[in-house]
Amino acid sequence: MNSLERLVTALAKLPGLGRKSAARLAYHLLRADPSYVRGLAADLVALRERIRPCRVCGAYTEAEHCRICSDPARDPNYVCVVEQPQDVETIEATGEFRGRYHVLMGVLSPLDGVGPEDLRIDPLLQRVRAEGVREVIVATNPTVEGEATALLLAKQLKGLGVTTSQLAHGLPVGSDLEYSDRLTVSRALRGRVRLD
Amino acid sequence: MNSLERLVTALAKLPGLGRKSAARLAYHLLRADPSYVRGLAADLVALRERIRPCRVCGAYTEAEHCRICSDPARDPNYVCVVEQPQDVETIEATGEFRGRYHVLMGVLSPLDGVGPEDLRIDPLLQRVRAEGVREVIVATNPTVEGEATALLLAKQLKGLGVTTSQLAHGLPVGSDLEYSDRLTVSRALRGRVRLD
Repeated sequence: MNSLERLVTALAKLPGLGRKSAARLAYHLLRADPSYVRGLAADLVALRERIRPCRVCGAYTEAEHCRICSDPARDPNYVCVVEQPQDVETIEATGEFRGRYHVLMGVLSPLDGVGPEDLRIDPLLQRVRAEGVREVIVATNPTVEGEATALLLAKQLKGLGVTTSQLAHGLPVGSDLEYSDRLTVSRALRGRVRLD
Repeated sequence: MNSLERLVTALAKLPGLGRKSAARLAYHLLRADPSYVRGLAADLVALRERIRPCRVCGAYTEAEHCRICSDPARDPNYVCVVEQPQDVETIEATGEFRGRYHVLMGVLSPLDGVGPEDLRIDPLLQRVRAEGVREVIVATNPTVEGEATALLLAKQLKGLGVTTSQLAHGLPVGSDLEYSDRLTVSRALRGRVRLD
């Protein structure tokens, strides 16, 4: 196997890339600016050497504490719980949330052998106790696993004197009622909001 | 910009990858086997250091001459002309061609400022003269640029005592006449083959 075939094989292991797309990328890299390719290789190495989970919330950072946890302007009364580090960016992009985060690093999934002890639930309970959090907003995905995890969190947070809430489920903005799935419409109906 | 953001920015420059897919890949790499990530980085560096164009045909190789040009079992009477090195693999995958290849490294494209002098046409003419080639099979893409390039090659090869042919245009196997575009059907009609 030569360098080209080896790179194609390695790239084809990435999620969402088949052998054809991997080959297309490799051929592109052969004609790309050599300094770009060297930079990409260096970035890959740096990634694993420098990035680590934030001591407090578990989001990815290069420092001991992430940008958000070390920002005194963020409101420590509100903690938004997400499944993965990348979910933090999705919530941040709304510009609506001024509290802090907590990354579970997964979601309950009995089929994959992921139980409560595999998630960062204990550190969350400790934070709630130590930081005097007022509201925990659960932002797990609207899937069976995400819902089960949200219910478990609500149960475990009960009695700690904290409000637990969950992102609203309903019709996505700009969607069409006619093409919405039954479950979404049913959740939108149950979660209807008063207009008067 | 931290290592994660730098990698996402670098990956997002690859063809077919937007910022979202680049972020997905980067987050995947953060949780992937570290030896795989180090290997990928090493493969990227090795690619640009080891792979170069074959002295004869221009296909990518790690040696002076590519696997096909150095194979004495390949018939030197037939040369298949392709636009890009990766096109060699596409023809090879058919298992139908036992001749050799010649990579043009592009296609005529006045809008992009690519003229005949930017393509590997002269080395092709030299090969035809020196190697006693009997047939040149032009396998440029069935696009305006590919057709123009094929016509130019036919003109330049005229008088060298070599047959010039082109891949057949027509209906793709398994396709539906009803959904075929007008140009394809028109080419299929003009190129019809006798059945008797």
